[in-house]
Amino acid sequence: MSQNNLDYIFKAKSVAVVGVSNKPGATALGGGLYLQHLLNCGFAGNIYPVNPKGGEVSNLKIYTSLKEIPEPVDFVICCIALKFVIPLIEECIATNAKALHIYTAGFSEYGTEEGKVLEEKMSSLARESGLRIIGPNCLGVYCPEAGLAFDNDVPTDSGTVGFVTQSGGNATTLIREASIRGIRFSKVVSYGNGCDVNESDLIEYLSHDPDTDVITVYIEGVKDGARFCEVLREATKKKPIIMLKGGIGEAGARAVVSHTGSLAGSDQVWSALFKQFGIVRVHSLEELIDMATTFAHLPKLSGNNVGLLCTGGGASVLATDICSTQGLDVPRFPKEMRDTLASFSMRGGVGLCLGNPVDLSGEVWSMTYDCAKTMLEYPGIDIMISQVTLSVYRNFFDGIYDRIINSVDELIRATKDSQKPNVLVVPMPISDETYRVATECRRKCHDAGIPVYNSLTSAAKSIAAFIDYHDNEK
Amino acid sequence: MSQNNLDYIFKAKSVAVVGVSNKPGATALGGGLYLQHLLNCGFAGNIYPVNPKGGEVSNLKIYTSLKEIPEPVDFVICCIALKFVIPLIEECIATNAKALHIYTAGFSEYGTEEGKVLEEKMSSLARESGLRIIGPNCLGVYCPEAGLAFDNDVPTDSGTVGFVTQSGGNATTLIREASIRGIRFSKVVSYGNGCDVNESDLIEYLSHDPDTDVITVYIEGVKDGARFCEVLREATKKKPIIMLKGGIGEAGARAVVSHTGSLAGSDQVWSALFKQFGIVRVHSLEELIDMATTFAHLPKLSGNNVGLLCTGGGASVLATDICSTQGLDVPRFPKEMRDTLASFSMRGGVGLCLGNPVDLSGEVWSMTYDCAKTMLEYPGIDIMISQVTLSVYRNFFDGIYDRIINSVDELIRATKDSQKPNVLVVPMPISDETYRVATECRRKCHDAGIPVYNSLTSAAKSIAAFIDYHDNEK
Repeated sequence: MSQNNLDYIFKAKSVAVVGVSNKPGATALGGGLYLQHLLNCGFAGNIYPVNPKGGEVSNLKIYTSLKEIPEPVDFVICCIALKFVIPLIEECIATNAKALHIYTAGFSEYGTEEGKVLEEKMSSLARESGLRIIGPNCLGVYCPEAGLAFDNDVPTDSGTVGFVTQSGGNATTLIREASIRGIRFSKVVSYGNGCDVNESDLIEYLSHDPDTDVITVYIEGVKDGARFCEVLREATKKKPIIMLKGGIGEAGARAVVSHTGSLAGSDQVWSALFKQFGIVRVHSLEELIDMATTFAHLPKLSGNNVGLLCTGGGASVLATDICSTQGLDVPRFPKEMRDTLASFSMRGGVGLCLGNPVDLSGEVWSMTYDCAKTMLEYPGIDIMISQVTLSVYRNFFDGIYDRIINSVDELIRATKDSQKPNVLVVPMPISDETYRVATECRRKCHDAGIPVYNSLTSAAKSIAAFIDYHDNEK
Repeated sequence: MSQNNLDYIFKAKSVAVVGVSNKPGATALGGGLYLQHLLNCGFAGNIYPVNPKGGEVSNLKIYTSLKEIPEPVDFVICCIALKFVIPLIEECIATNAKALHIYTAGFSEYGTEEGKVLEEKMSSLARESGLRIIGPNCLGVYCPEAGLAFDNDVPTDSGTVGFVTQSGGNATTLIREASIRGIRFSKVVSYGNGCDVNESDLIEYLSHDPDTDVITVYIEGVKDGARFCEVLREATKKKPIIMLKGGIGEAGARAVVSHTGSLAGSDQVWSALFKQFGIVRVHSLEELIDMATTFAHLPKLSGNNVGLLCTGGGASVLATDICSTQGLDVPRFPKEMRDTLASFSMRGGVGLCLGNPVDLSGEVWSMTYDCAKTMLEYPGIDIMISQVTLSVYRNFFDGIYDRIINSVDELIRATKDSQKPNVLVVPMPISDETYRVATECRRKCHDAGIPVYNSLTSAAKSIAAFIDYHDNEK
């Protein structure tokens, strides 16, 4: 039921943006900004800017009210002052608009009596009329497929990750940071105070959404715990859910009250919930991104045996330790396999470690493809982790940075030529040049659908959680 | 005793580099590269390139042997082929050279009988003659004060962090990555197979070194456990030791054997050792850098109360949770304090969270200095963590990036104007522009001696470990 009417948002054929000025520079603020996002994101339906003063903006007629618009609007975006919000809701109902996003803040989250009363009024208007309301106090909807966005710096192409978030700031941070990690989204909804459409509705919708494979959630508190549990029980049967719970301690719970006015609830209850439904729990946005890239890109693995490809003896030792600590096995290659790897070396493998971890050291430039392909095809490993080293001698030899990029090309080619997953670790850049190299390497991996992590620890932790998730599924 | 003769290295008045060619491009390889490092790093004493063929390089005469050099050399760097190494040691002894670094590899770490025999010969020659040998199979010494380096991309200014490492690759990675985090080193020694000078000698030396405040160590295995314990017992009484043990599991121990031929030892024994001597244990180079910047820059704290300054409601909630999880308190500010903070706001604090965590949201541009200074001067907190947000609307307003940099200036000024520490979190950049901004913000903090972390998790974890360290000292 709720799915069907939320389609008016995610498959909106018409959008009205209420609170768009026709003054110069108006497209950089409030409603003007939302209008700009619709245009940038290529919204294909009818767009109706609304302002009582009328006029024109971005070659579009500004309508003086919803009533003036020649059709019932699917999705209305409200960017007007607090006192005009209830009248707008009434106008939505009167004109048979289907859904409304209220960007405006200052309701229950302010802790004022007025705000609380207004929000209760919204809820009951929505309930009585069937108008679906997202918000108030939120950024609303980013759905590249539909041409909806709340931010100008975001990809206009779609992916398979859905994100439901009680915090708008976390929504923009996540989308931007995840985008440079190669993650693309099906739907992101910042639902703020959730006076009508809430976390349960959205998770339920995404669990049925054919465009969403992985559901990620940032949540501070829920109003209807029973419904939430029921939705999670069903949704986790269909898709992995990765969840970040905000407000886990006393201080955090206090911060939650100031932020969204929610009751954070006991962390013990939440922990039990995660465990009961096999929800993947993360503790920071960085971790959420690591898990999202893992779940969105990796196929189910047959086991926990990792092949490690590194550059440098110390780096290989540490990489191995980190994998072991996370519960991943780094099995020793048999002699025959080591001999095969040695046959790719210019010096017969002298000075290299080829038994897994594999340390190619100075020969990384010449034998990456053969070595990676052989490792990937070895039945004793289920996945490969390849570490790209950026902290190299600047003038170790001419064109060193092009060689690094080339070795990443070889890794990608070997991965495509085999049937096994390979993930890359590209560390924080240490200079302008390595920033350029890192960015280029990441882009190449993203284009090839290969997950990239900032550190070996992040890669190992995410892969271990991914394996655990599928083990628990059994 | 060992300290005095290691002074010949760290206070070398003359250095010979054996294995320097006079061919064009020779300064980009082996001995030529070490010569270049001495020149780049401003080594102030006499520099003697050595090659049996003689000639000239970088306006310096190439001596045909150590014997031809007119004085006994303090420190000899050996970059010649395996078979010439023992004769060079004998020549060092004959000419009364004081110390020798053997860059050449191919000894015990290759697992060959020849390598093992040669390395035993080196050890006994050193023992009998008093010549101190660093290596073989290592990068040797980086000591900016002395003008010694093994890498061209490293700072020529000194700091208070010492680093003793069994891995040369980890040495260069650490120096480069730590440098962009504002860490400067007193002495870094990559000692490889440690045929003579070993981890115990070096830790002991650094514990007495007036230029070293913090000792960091990467170690895979020790040969003389009793001496190692004795050195740690005394050294930890003087200075904090931060240690990364490589080879902790079965697979890691195997990797260690291929790398330096060491016996990794049982992880239980190592854990007990860390605990007994109050050594700060880390599990990755990233963590080692986080701890080093913390220990090098923070004064001892009076307690674990943190003031949190963030931008965005969700970000503040998560920051608070992360602090709590790490055992840090985020105490609620009393009403009077909240009123003072509200008085800096253009809107009397409406819509801001000022109770700690402090979320300045849109007013971060106008009230950062006053707010940070008031927080730092509040007796209820011992340290402040300030989060810089880089994932902002690109065109939120003109000059947004300059405003971010300006807010960092304000944070630095507030920190200088108060007597309490403040650390900054500057996240991974998400675009070319934010890379530029992040780099600029980091540089400003480094110049001001303020630690910078890549994530809130890293900051909170490091500060908690720092507080624990001092608590255990009591």
